[in-house]
Amino acid sequence: MLASTTLSDLLSTLLDRRPFGRKFEDGREIKEICLALQTESDETSGWKLASTILNRYRMLDRDRKIAFFEFLNDELDLDAARVADLANTYGSDPSPKNFRALSKASEPRRQALFRQLNEAPGATAQIVRLRRDLLALLEERPEFARTDHDIVHLLRSWFNRGFLVMRQINWESPASILEKIIAYEAVHEIGTWDDLRRRLQPTDRRCFAFFHPAMPDEPLIFVEVALTCGVPNSIQSVLSEEREAMDAEDADTAVFYSISNCQAGLAGVSFGNSLIKQVVRDLSHDLPNIRAFVTLSPIPGLMRWLKNEGTPHSGDDPRGIERLAAKYLLDAKAADGLPLDPVARFHLGNGAIVHAIHSDADHSESGLVRSSGVMVNYKYDLSRIAQNTLRFSKRREVVATSSVKNLAKRAAVASGGPATLPIGMRTRRE
Amino acid sequence: MLASTTLSDLLSTLLDRRPFGRKFEDGREIKEICLALQTESDETSGWKLASTILNRYRMLDRDRKIAFFEFLNDELDLDAARVADLANTYGSDPSPKNFRALSKASEPRRQALFRQLNEAPGATAQIVRLRRDLLALLEERPEFARTDHDIVHLLRSWFNRGFLVMRQINWESPASILEKIIAYEAVHEIGTWDDLRRRLQPTDRRCFAFFHPAMPDEPLIFVEVALTCGVPNSIQSVLSEEREAMDAEDADTAVFYSISNCQAGLAGVSFGNSLIKQVVRDLSHDLPNIRAFVTLSPIPGLMRWLKNEGTPHSGDDPRGIERLAAKYLLDAKAADGLPLDPVARFHLGNGAIVHAIHSDADHSESGLVRSSGVMVNYKYDLSRIAQNTLRFSKRREVVATSSVKNLAKRAAVASGGPATLPIGMRTRRE
Amino acid sequence: MLASTTLSDLLSTLLDRRPFGRKFEDGREIKEICLALQTESDETSGWKLASTILNRYRMLDRDRKIAFFEFLNDELDLDAARVADLANTYGSDPSPKNFRALSKASEPRRQALFRQLNEAPGATAQIVRLRRDLLALLEERPEFARTDHDIVHLLRSWFNRGFLVMRQINWESPASILEKIIAYEAVHEIGTWDDLRRRLQPTDRRCFAFFHPAMPDEPLIFVEVALTCGVPNSIQSVLSEEREAMDAEDADTAVFYSISNCQAGLAGVSFGNSLIKQVVRDLSHDLPNIRAFVTLSPIPGLMRWLKNEGTPHSGDDPRGIERLAAKYLLDAKAADGLPLDPVARFHLGNGAIVHAIHSDADHSESGLVRSSGVMVNYKYDLSRIAQNTLRFSKRREVVATSSVKNLAKRAAVASGGPATLPIGMRTRRE
Amino acid sequence: MLASTTLSDLLSTLLDRRPFGRKFEDGREIKEICLALQTESDETSGWKLASTILNRYRMLDRDRKIAFFEFLNDELDLDAARVADLANTYGSDPSPKNFRALSKASEPRRQALFRQLNEAPGATAQIVRLRRDLLALLEERPEFARTDHDIVHLLRSWFNRGFLVMRQINWESPASILEKIIAYEAVHEIGTWDDLRRRLQPTDRRCFAFFHPAMPDEPLIFVEVALTCGVPNSIQSVLSEEREAMDAEDADTAVFYSISNCQAGLAGVSFGNSLIKQVVRDLSHDLPNIRAFVTLSPIPGLMRWLKNEGTPHSGDDPRGIERLAAKYLLDAKAADGLPLDPVARFHLGNGAIVHAIHSDADHSESGLVRSSGVMVNYKYDLSRIAQNTLRFSKRREVVATSSVKNLAKRAAVASGGPATLPIGMRTRRE
Repeated sequence: MLASTTLSDLLSTLLDRRPFGRKFEDGREIKEICLALQTESDETSGWKLASTILNRYRMLDRDRKIAFFEFLNDELDLDAARVADLANTYGSDPSPKNFRALSKASEPRRQALFRQLNEAPGATAQIVRLRRDLLALLEERPEFARTDHDIVHLLRSWFNRGFLVMRQINWESPASILEKIIAYEAVHEIGTWDDLRRRLQPTDRRCFAFFHPAMPDEPLIFVEVALTCGVPNSIQSVLSEEREAMDAEDADTAVFYSISNCQAGLAGVSFGNSLIKQVVRDLSHDLPNIRAFVTLSPIPGLMRWLKNEGTPHSGDDPRGIERLAAKYLLDAKAADGLPLDPVARFHLGNGAIVHAIHSDADHSESGLVRSSGVMVNYKYDLSRIAQNTLRFSKRREVVATSSVKNLAKRAAVASGGPATLPIGMRTRRE
Repeated sequence: MLASTTLSDLLSTLLDRRPFGRKFEDGREIKEICLALQTESDETSGWKLASTILNRYRMLDRDRKIAFFEFLNDELDLDAARVADLANTYGSDPSPKNFRALSKASEPRRQALFRQLNEAPGATAQIVRLRRDLLALLEERPEFARTDHDIVHLLRSWFNRGFLVMRQINWESPASILEKIIAYEAVHEIGTWDDLRRRLQPTDRRCFAFFHPAMPDEPLIFVEVALTCGVPNSIQSVLSEEREAMDAEDADTAVFYSISNCQAGLAGVSFGNSLIKQVVRDLSHDLPNIRAFVTLSPIPGLMRWLKNEGTPHSGDDPRGIERLAAKYLLDAKAADGLPLDPVARFHLGNGAIVHAIHSDADHSESGLVRSSGVMVNYKYDLSRIAQNTLRFSKRREVVATSSVKNLAKRAAVASGGPATLPIGMRTRRE
Repeated sequence: MLASTTLSDLLSTLLDRRPFGRKFEDGREIKEICLALQTESDETSGWKLASTILNRYRMLDRDRKIAFFEFLNDELDLDAARVADLANTYGSDPSPKNFRALSKASEPRRQALFRQLNEAPGATAQIVRLRRDLLALLEERPEFARTDHDIVHLLRSWFNRGFLVMRQINWESPASILEKIIAYEAVHEIGTWDDLRRRLQPTDRRCFAFFHPAMPDEPLIFVEVALTCGVPNSIQSVLSEEREAMDAEDADTAVFYSISNCQAGLAGVSFGNSLIKQVVRDLSHDLPNIRAFVTLSPIPGLMRWLKNEGTPHSGDDPRGIERLAAKYLLDAKAADGLPLDPVARFHLGNGAIVHAIHSDADHSESGLVRSSGVMVNYKYDLSRIAQNTLRFSKRREVVATSSVKNLAKRAAVASGGPATLPIGMRTRRE
Repeated sequence: MLASTTLSDLLSTLLDRRPFGRKFEDGREIKEICLALQTESDETSGWKLASTILNRYRMLDRDRKIAFFEFLNDELDLDAARVADLANTYGSDPSPKNFRALSKASEPRRQALFRQLNEAPGATAQIVRLRRDLLALLEERPEFARTDHDIVHLLRSWFNRGFLVMRQINWESPASILEKIIAYEAVHEIGTWDDLRRRLQPTDRRCFAFFHPAMPDEPLIFVEVALTCGVPNSIQSVLSEEREAMDAEDADTAVFYSISNCQAGLAGVSFGNSLIKQVVRDLSHDLPNIRAFVTLSPIPGLMRWLKNEGTPHSGDDPRGIERLAAKYLLDAKAADGLPLDPVARFHLGNGAIVHAIHSDADHSESGLVRSSGVMVNYKYDLSRIAQNTLRFSKRREVVATSSVKNLAKRAAVASGGPATLPIGMRTRRE
C-alpha cells in the first residue's frame, strides 16, 4: 500500500533552481570576492559571488589552495582580545545585548562565509570536497585544524541526523547513483556492473544508503546486507558468483558484510552508527523472521599488532590465529583505553558485541595481508544495544560471547600493549 | 518533458523513519531528561529522550514553560569567565587545541541540546513551535532573548536557503497542504475551499511556497500571483468571483498580491526576499511574455502615521489620499533611516521600487482602517534589483517612479518625523 | 521501506502529451469528419480529427446527438449478408485469409472509429461520457443497444482489471481528486470538506479507489472503510462527528460502509468486486490484527418489496422488521433466481455471506424510506469466497449465518414472489 | 517548474498488487485449466488459474507449445456455421438481441481466454512473449495465423496509442531499464555500460522510449537522438568516443540515429511512427533552436538489390554508390508498389522525405555488408508530414530533395524490378 507522497512530491524541485546560464567573469582575486560576498545583500548577486568563489577555488593549484586556507585561517579568524573583553562584559552584565555581542565575536568570520557559500545551488557538495582538500593538508599545516574545526561544526549542523534520508539501493536505482556505489565500495571491491548486480538484485541481498536533500546524487555512506540462514563464516560464501538466492522470507539472519563511507570530506561527521541501527530497525519490521543481525567484518589491525607484539603467525594453524584474533579484539587497547582495532571500536561503540571469529574467512589479498584471512562477526541485539553502549563508553568494557572469551584466554601472546594509533573507518579508495 | 526524478525519488523516505510505537513513560523531570540526553550515546535511546522532552514540553502549562526557559537561559548558558580565560589563552597561543577549547566554551550548552533534540523524527517543526512560545514571552522576560538568539542561530543554519524547496501550490496539491494555505493567508483572508480554488485553479493564477525537507507538510511562506494584462489598481478586481480567467500566455504582468509567512516561530529567519526573487526568475523563464513583476500591496501604517502627523484624511478625496500615501512611503522614516512602513521596508529592501499608488483599491475593512483603501504597486526589475538594493541599504534611498515622486511633492502634510516603530511583516492570524 | 518507483517514474508523462494549442476549425459535419478519420494515416492529423469529433460531439444538442448515434448505429454497422457469406466461406475453408476476412467483416465499423478516437490525448474520459449519454437514450431508442454493446466491448478491453490501479485516498490526496469523492459519494452524502476529512484523516478510517492510467484524475469507484472493534450495528455510530478515533493496530474489524461507482458511463464494466477483494487482501497484509471484513449495507428494496407483498411495516417493532429484512434477503428472488435486492446480489455474487441484520441502524431520510432504518452486514471471508461464489452462481444459494436464517424463519410474511426488477448498484447522484 | 504529479502519484501501485505467495500446484492439463478459467467467477481464483496457465505455458517444450496453440486455434475457434446462421438472423431482424448473439458468436473463444489471462498481475508481458513464440511457429504452421490474428487484435486494443507513455531514458534511469536498452539496441550495438553512458549522459544526446503502464519495466521501442550543428554524414562521427559534447541550446539539428523495437511479440503493433512524431513535437517545444529533424539511417536492402539487379558495386567509387543508393531508394519497389527498402518504407510512410545520401558513412561490418557503408538522411518536416503521408500512401510517391533525385538519375543501373520481399523493421538481435 502507499505511503503518502507528499514529501517526495514537495522535493522534486530542490535541485531545480535555475543555474546562471553561461559562466560569468569576475576579475577579482578569490579573497576579494569572499570579502565582497560578506557584504552582499541581494540574493542573486550573492549566489553569483558564491558560485564564482567555489568555481574559482576548484581551479586553484595546490599552492594557491594553501594560500586560500591561510586567508580563511588567519584573516577570517576571530579576534581573541575582543572575545575576552566581551566575555568579561557579559560576565558582569549578562544582558541579551552583551550576549549577542559575545556570541557574534566568538564566531570566526569564516563560519559566516561558509554559510553564505552554502546558499548557492549545489554548493554543499562543493564545500564537502573543499574539506577533503583541507584534511589532506592537515599533516603539513596542522594550524589549519582551526578552519577545519569550523567547517566540521557547520557540516554537523547541516548533516544533522534529522535531515538524512535512508534509501534502499537496488537494481532499479538510477545508474548515476549505482556508478557511485561501484566507485565508493571500500571493503570488498566491486569490479563490474554484473558484480554490482549480484549484490543488489537477488532476493536475499539488500543495500541501504544515507542521502542528504542538498546532495541527492551523492550517497553519504552505504551498507551491503546479505540475508542468510545462520551466521556465515566466510566472505567468499557471501560473494560467490555461483550461489543460489533464497527467498527473503526464509532467512533468519541479516549480515552487514560491507559498510563504506563515500565522502572523505565528511570524515568525523559520523553516520555509520545511525545507518546500521536504522537498517536493523527497518529490517526487523519488514522481515520479522530475521532474528539475528551480525556483521562479517575485517580485522584490519591484526597482523600489524602481531608484528608489533613480536608474535608473527605462520598461517598454518587456523585455531591459533583465531585465538590471537580474539586476544587482539578483546585485549589490545589504544592509549584511550578503547580497542586498538578501528572496526572493533566502531561496532563496539555502537553497542554490538564480539560474536564469533573465523579463520580462513577472507581469501582476498588485502584480507590475507591485514588479518591472515580471519574475520569477525559483531552482533547487534536491539534490546541490549543501549546497555552495551554504556558499558563500552563508560567502563571501556568489550562485551563478547563466552566462546570468544575462551578463545582469547588460550591465545599464545605475551603482552598486549598498544602499538599503533587506530586509523579511522576506511573511506573510499584514494 | 521530464526532469530527473532522482531527488524526489531519494527523499520519499525522509519522514518514513519508524516512530517508537506506543508512548513510553519517563518519570523524571524535563530538566533531568535534558541533562541525560546530553550524555546519551546510543541513537535510539537519544531519540526517545528527545521525543520525550519535546512531548513533555508541549504539555507544560505557561508557568512551567517559563521555568523550562529559565533552565535553558541560565543553567545551560555559557561560562563567561571561562570564555574570557580561554580567549586570552588563545590570544597568546593560537593553537588548534586552544581554538577548539574556546570554540566549545563559547557555545552555550543549550545549543548542543537543541541540536540533539533536532535529531529525533519530526523534531524540527516542534522546535519551531517552541520558539513561537518563546517569542511570545520575550516582552515579559526580555532576558530570554539570549536563548532566542541561540535558537535563531540554529534555525538559520538548518533553514539555509540552499536547503529550501520552492514548490507550486495548485488545485492538485494535497488537501493537508491546502488547508494550511487557508489557515496561514494573512493578507486577504481565504474564507472557503471555493475561495481557495479561485486563487489556485484558474489558468491565470499561481501560488508558490517554500518548504523544508524536514517539515514537508508545512509551508514556510507562500506568495499568491495573478497574471494580468497591465498593472491592476485594485485588489477587488483581482479577487473578483465573477472575473473570467485568461490564458497565461496572454498575460504581460505578474502581480504578487499576497505574501504570507506561515511559521511565527521562524520570525527573523527571512525567506520572503528569496521566494519573490525565485518566482520572478522562474516565471520569466516559463512565461517569456511576462514583462513586468509588480506587487499589489497594502500600506499598513498609513492611517496611523497620518493620525500621528495630525493630518487625518476624510476619505472623500482620492487624489489627496494618494498624495499622502506617496509622501508617507517616500519620506516617513523610522529611527534607523529606513521607511516607516513595514511592507515598504520589505520590498524596497529586496530591490523593488515604488511604482504606482491607487486610491479606492481595497474595500475590505482592514484595508479601509489601515490605509483608507489605498494600495501600492512595488515593481521588481531583475536587471536593477542589485543596484536598487545597494542604494537602499547603503544610502537609505527610496527609489520611485517620477509620477510617484510628483504625487509626494504635492502632498499636503506638514512634517514627516517617525512616530511609531515599524512592525514586522505580518505572520498568520493569531 | 521503499517500493520501487520505476512505474510512477515512468508514467508521470502520460498526460503530458502536448495539446494542440488553440482550437482549430473544421467546417465539415461530424459524420464527415468521422469518415475522414477512418482513412487518415498521419498520427497528428488523426489526433486533430479525433479531438474535433469529441469536442464537436460535446456541443451537440440532444437531437443532434441522437442523429449522431443513428449514424453510428446504422451507417457504421456491420454488413450481415457479407458476414454470413464470409462465415460460410470460412466454414468450408478455414484458412487464415478467410478467417481475417470474416473477423474484419464481423466487427462493426464503429468499433474501429472508437479505437481511433481513443488515441487522442484525454479521449478515454470523453468516450466514457459519451456512453453516459447513450445509456440515457436507451429507453427511448432501444435499438441503440447495438452501438452500446460495441462501446462496452471496447471499454471492457481498455478497463481490463490488469490495467486498473488501486490507490488509497487520504487527506494527502490532491484536492482535485477529493472534490470528486465529495461529488460521487452515492450512499452516505458528504456535505463539506470537514465531513470529508472525518472520513479520510482519522487513524481508523481508510478509503480506496480504482483509477485508470488514461484517466488519472478520475476515480472509477471507491470504497470507504472504518476500522472498528467488533461489527458495528448502525451507520450513525460510524459517521458520528463526536467519536474518538482509535489506533488502527487496535481494530479487529474492517467495515466497508460505502461503495460508490463514479462513472455512469462505465455501468456494466464492473469493478466493485475487484476493489473489495483487493482491499481485503491488502488490509489483511498490512493490519494482521484485522480478523473480520464486513459491510454495513443498505437494503434499498426492502420497503418496496414489503409494500408489494402487502406486508407494510409500522416501524415500531424492531425485531419484526429485522425478521422481515432477513426473509427478504434470503427468499425474495428475481426472475433469474437471484436475490431481488441489488446490493445483496452484488455482495453475495462476490462471495460474501449475510452476516447480521440491524434495525434502527440508519436514521437518514433515505434509510428510513428504503428500509425503515434496517441495515445488513455482509461478511467477506477470504478462505470461503471462492466456494460461496460457486454456491451462489451455480446453485443460486444465499449463504447466511444461522442467526439470520432463524430470523428469516420467524418472519411474518405470506409469500415471496418477485415483484420488481432489481436496479443496478447505485451510481452517483444524477 | 513542476508539472502536476497526480498521475505518477496515482500509478505507483500498479504493479504493487500482492502476488500469491508460494507457488500453488494444479494437477490438471493446461487445456483443462483454460476451460476452468473460462467459467471461473471469483477474481482471486481466476488470477490463480491465469497465473498457473501462463507459468505452465512457459515450462512447455516446443512440441507441447505447438499442441497448446493447436488447442487455441481449433478448439477455441469460432463456430462458422453458427456465425452464418446468426448473421442471417440479424440480417432479417437487426435487433440488439440478435446483434449481441452474432457479436458473441463471431468472436473466437480464445479471445475471451486471453482477456481473462490478462487480468492477472504481470500477465501482459507474458502474453507478449507467448506471441513471440507463436510468430516463430508461423512459417511451419501457417494456420496458426488465425490465433495470431486474434492476439494482435487484443494487443492493438491494449497498446492503444492513448495508453502509451513516452519517457526520456538517461543516466538517471534505473539500471533495470538501462540493461534492456543495451540488450535491445538493434542498429548500432551498445557494447558496455560506458558505451551506453556516451549515448545518454552528454548534453547533446537524448533517448526516448515508449512504455505501457502494465509493463513498466519493459521499453517497447526507443529512439536515440544526437543534437548537432548541421546534418551529419557519418555514424562514426556521431558515435565517436573522442568527440566533445556541445550545449543543447547551440544545436540546430536533431538526428534520429537509431530506432529499435524491443518486443518481438509486438511485431505489427507499430509504435515507431508515433514515437518519432512525439519526439519531434516535444523537442520542437523544448529546444526552439532545433530547426531540422533528420534520421541517419541504414539502407539494409541495398547490396542485396544490387546483386539481384546484377550490378555489384566495387566500393571504390563513392559517387557511384551514392547514385545507386538514390536509385534504389527512389525506384526499387516491392509488389505493392511501395519501396523495397524496409527502412525507407517506414520513414516515407511516416511522412518523411529522402533528404541526402552519404557514402563512407558506416564502417561497421554490418554497414559494409548491407549497404557498402552508404547511409541516408530522411527528414521530418512537421508542416509537411501530413501531405507527404498522403502522397506516399495514396499515390505511392517517394518525396525526395532535388539533389537526391539528380543522384538517382545518374545511377548506372539497368532496370529496377522488385527482387526480394521487404523485411519488417529490425527488432532486437535474436
